[in-house]
Amino acid sequence: MKDKTFLMIPGPTPVPERVLLDMAKHPIGHRSTEFSKVLESIYSDLKMFFRTKNDVLVFTASGTGAMDAALSNLVNKGDKVLSLVIGNFGQRWAKIAKNYGAEVQTIEVEPGQAINPDELRKVLEADVNKEIKIVTLTHNETSTGVTNDLKTLASIIREHGAISVVDGVTSLGAIQCEMDEWGIDVLISGSQKGFMIPPGLSFLAANERAWAVAEKCERPSFYFNWASNRKSLLENSTAFTPAVNLFMALKSALEMMKDEGIENIWLRHKRNAKALRAGIRALGLKLFVEDEKIASYAVTAVLPPENISVPDIRKVLKNDYDIVVANGQNKLKDKIFRMGTLGFVSERDVITAIGSLEATLYKLGYKFEPGVGVGAVIKEFMK
Amino acid sequence: MKDKTFLMIPGPTPVPERVLLDMAKHPIGHRSTEFSKVLESIYSDLKMFFRTKNDVLVFTASGTGAMDAALSNLVNKGDKVLSLVIGNFGQRWAKIAKNYGAEVQTIEVEPGQAINPDELRKVLEADVNKEIKIVTLTHNETSTGVTNDLKTLASIIREHGAISVVDGVTSLGAIQCEMDEWGIDVLISGSQKGFMIPPGLSFLAANERAWAVAEKCERPSFYFNWASNRKSLLENSTAFTPAVNLFMALKSALEMMKDEGIENIWLRHKRNAKALRAGIRALGLKLFVEDEKIASYAVTAVLPPENISVPDIRKVLKNDYDIVVANGQNKLKDKIFRMGTLGFVSERDVITAIGSLEATLYKLGYKFEPGVGVGAVIKEFMK
Repeated sequence: MKDKTFLMIPGPTPVPERVLLDMAKHPIGHRSTEFSKVLESIYSDLKMFFRTKNDVLVFTASGTGAMDAALSNLVNKGDKVLSLVIGNFGQRWAKIAKNYGAEVQTIEVEPGQAINPDELRKVLEADVNKEIKIVTLTHNETSTGVTNDLKTLASIIREHGAISVVDGVTSLGAIQCEMDEWGIDVLISGSQKGFMIPPGLSFLAANERAWAVAEKCERPSFYFNWASNRKSLLENSTAFTPAVNLFMALKSALEMMKDEGIENIWLRHKRNAKALRAGIRALGLKLFVEDEKIASYAVTAVLPPENISVPDIRKVLKNDYDIVVANGQNKLKDKIFRMGTLGFVSERDVITAIGSLEATLYKLGYKFEPGVGVGAVIKEFMK
Repeated sequence: MKDKTFLMIPGPTPVPERVLLDMAKHPIGHRSTEFSKVLESIYSDLKMFFRTKNDVLVFTASGTGAMDAALSNLVNKGDKVLSLVIGNFGQRWAKIAKNYGAEVQTIEVEPGQAINPDELRKVLEADVNKEIKIVTLTHNETSTGVTNDLKTLASIIREHGAISVVDGVTSLGAIQCEMDEWGIDVLISGSQKGFMIPPGLSFLAANERAWAVAEKCERPSFYFNWASNRKSLLENSTAFTPAVNLFMALKSALEMMKDEGIENIWLRHKRNAKALRAGIRALGLKLFVEDEKIASYAVTAVLPPENISVPDIRKVLKNDYDIVVANGQNKLKDKIFRMGTLGFVSERDVITAIGSLEATLYKLGYKFEPGVGVGAVIKEFMK
């Protein structure tokens, strides 16, 4: 049976029916009073989920658009940027910074590891002349399933004085992220992850320190210009034609998120990921990130059993159980598969996923006692 | 009775139910074979509607995003750009060019007029050292309802040798526009107009002359980078996460457009606009653009009768007949109202619009014989 696809990739993530139906309504005029009210409510709710008093700009663009929006408004030619790279999305920050003429230094770790705060401190302490202007980092790295200790890293960056620019695309609305309390200067996110709507919108919040730097930017992007976008935001409008239907979807999803409560959302992601990990372990499979302290609650990378290939696992899961999991990226292709528990994912979904993974492995000849994975999931949830 | 809103603004425009429902399906993975096939079909169909052999890049962004994509990949600091301005959207080209450091010269006409080809020729002939690198222009200006004679203007620009950069946001899929045959170098458009889907996607095609200039761009946009976006296009993929659901909608809309046929689409827009104009005239109202040669087939600007205000007309049309028409912009605010016949608009819709406008004017105390407008519309359609 087909047409019951369950996306367990790290994005796009499952979208609630209510949100899909709100998105499917005829578009309304984006300069109408009605739409202005929608924007007012969205702008206010986003602040709550960014845990910030700063305005949260919304761009009609994917997450990379918001990354571009961050650096194209901050970087002048020749600026020194330090990029903390724990995977492909950390690498993207470095690429964008270079694109805008920055001199980029990186701290890079092996895939599956997080940034060591001591190493960051060492590098920043060595920068005695405070030449490093910006530090880019990824909160949750979906290419490996690792979550950085953002609170500690942000505080070290603040001590130095550089502007911290954080990719929260797969952490906002899933993993605790406190923009104001942790002293994050620029935080960006996307719509198709924790915010439970399809891709097409992305978000950026900047504090006063970052705005002061942006004001001195020599050649900011036009479309992603912070100032023109904020000017419209303050009028409950948008600088350019917004993706109206995606905004309607966002309003609907934010209402669901408020109903659940942000602490409950974080807890759900933590419980789901921990249960998924328990199931994987019970099946005798290896987790790519064993260290519980840095293991992501949004996406879990798994090594296949010996003699069973990642493509085969993905194929059977897709064809027979209509579940889509992601392959590894670049060097990790066919070495790991990645299961998302990001966004609109329930306990039942985790049971479903491990149960279907068991059936898949059984079909592929893996030797184990069927049911042992689901059993471990259930026990973990009861804790 | 509410909840039967008919958008007669120049965008967003009405979206077919079929397209809305296709958009409302659960998103699929954007790196899947299935989505790759969707992209293959979209990329191929867009060429057909751009009337070009060039690749048509698709950005998850609004129309202004594609405008930014055009100039941020072409303009180096100090470049001379000539902007042909017949309204707000022409002005936007000039602003973007300045944003990227261009020295901008403009030919600007009074609102409601088109660019005079002779004047363009004069300015370009005066540029004996060929210092003007880029000429920006608007095919169809929605702020006034004027269509430039793009064929002639493009040929004059080609004679000079500058790169023509054309805003076809409200002409593609509505008004004849022949990228290759007319020698347009860069042509952009958006999704929420002739392409009949909600806002959120925009398009850009460039010919080899433009690509050669782009290769020498010193600091192109990262998100809107032509080269990285084309690289992915050639693999039937996208450089960054696409607005999956809007792409599904686009595929559906392009199928409807192919079924109708591009010549028939142009003819429908022409007939609808002419019938609408006949109705307006029969009511004794004044058209903002009287000259049939430059009057837009996508949007018609109308002056209100004496002693009846634009806000009142818009209010009654909206409240009592659920039809949204646009106000004038900037200096034209409250001086004109604008009725779109852009995209998914049928003969019946024109009858509906004029009939409802009649009822509105009647309520507001305007003296005329009710039915005379609709009568003129019907007679015009019979021609």
